Amino acid sequence: MTDLPRGKFITLEGGEGVGKSTNLRFITQWLDARGIDFVQTREPGGTPLAEQLRTLLLEKRDEAVDPTAELLMVFAARAQHLSRVILPALAAGKWVVCDRFTDATYAYQGGGRGLDRALIGELEQTVQGDLRPDRVLLLDLDPVIGLQRAASTGEADRFESEQQVFFEKVRAAYRERAEAAPSRYAVIDAAKSLPEVQQQLAQVLEAIAAAHG
Amino acid sequence: MTDLPRGKFITLEGGEGVGKSTNLRFITQWLDARGIDFVQTREPGGTPLAEQLRTLLLEKRDEAVDPTAELLMVFAARAQHLSRVILPALAAGKWVVCDRFTDATYAYQGGGRGLDRALIGELEQTVQGDLRPDRVLLLDLDPVIGLQRAASTGEADRFESEQQVFFEKVRAAYRERAEAAPSRYAVIDAAKSLPEVQQQLAQVLEAIAAAHG
Repeated sequence: MTDLPRGKFITLEGGEGVGKSTNLRFITQWLDARGIDFVQTREPGGTPLAEQLRTLLLEKRDEAVDPTAELLMVFAARAQHLSRVILPALAAGKWVVCDRFTDATYAYQGGGRGLDRALIGELEQTVQGDLRPDRVLLLDLDPVIGLQRAASTGEADRFESEQQVFFEKVRAAYRERAEAAPSRYAVIDAAKSLPEVQQQLAQVLEAIAAAHG
Repeated sequence: MTDLPRGKFITLEGGEGVGKSTNLRFITQWLDARGIDFVQTREPGGTPLAEQLRTLLLEKRDEAVDPTAELLMVFAARAQHLSRVILPALAAGKWVVCDRFTDATYAYQGGGRGLDRALIGELEQTVQGDLRPDRVLLLDLDPVIGLQRAASTGEADRFESEQQVFFEKVRAAYRERAEAAPSRYAVIDAAKSLPEVQQQLAQVLEAIAAAHG
């Protein structure tokens, strides 16, 4: 958290069923085609310990999970991920492409669970220092459509099992963050066809690479 | 974290090999003999999720654990433990006897790992609000003796595997906290014989019970 990162730090965000996996593959193929050295990772997770925390976070359990406990687990995993994976990669000049990051915490724990945004902001500063994603690619979609799409992809985890109203709040929190800092967010309409979505993604990636070169 | 707790909240603290397990049995037997309704629990742990976090914290691993990640895992487990076990028990008028609590965080993560005490204080306030133990029973012992005693009790976990200098810092941090708030701490010389230690514990428990009415 001391040196200025040299690689670009790109995060992919969005609620359930927005097409993150498919578009993540498109992004990594685009980077490969350009010969850009990158690390693909995800949150919560990205290291053995952080993946163990992910399992604890996602698995459905009889025990009600205290929202603050959930928030602290998310940031514990993030601290580990940053120190072991993200910061070393950026310092080595690599791009980092991360499937969800702190915007998801503002969306799920802040919007969805209703936790205080100021507390999230304090933890963000503690764990990340001044590091923020260079660009957040937000796949935006009406949860009614997203949940229909997601319903066909296997058993729901603890978050996926939430009700529609939860995902409305998640979406609203994501959009609010994008509106507050439009230069850092690319909001992509995930209701469009896959070729249209990927055309938008490619344009954003071109712009980042141009700024980087 | 809203209602004033009605039961007494007692924590037992100390480094490795100070005799916590033996003296915990003495304490619970003393409470049973008095007919005091209590919950015995421990940290990190005390609920299924918090015990899973304990396992992640204690198990030895190849991956270096970021100190901030460790600290956040400790407080995540604590938030869960408070909301599910400690606060309900205190609110129901029960005493809570907890094997380690936030003083251990100041001692191990603050003293041992060298993390910023102010950060620990912020997390303490976030997770506990104004709740603090009514009385901290600190078993104080020279780590040279404690580590000799602990060496005979099976394989060392990730904390027990630390070097003596780590435990010197843990002890110093514990003592510093006791000196700063002497009315809340009972510092018990764990180098003395077991009957002498337990006589001291009994006196402290008498005083708490008398104050409790």
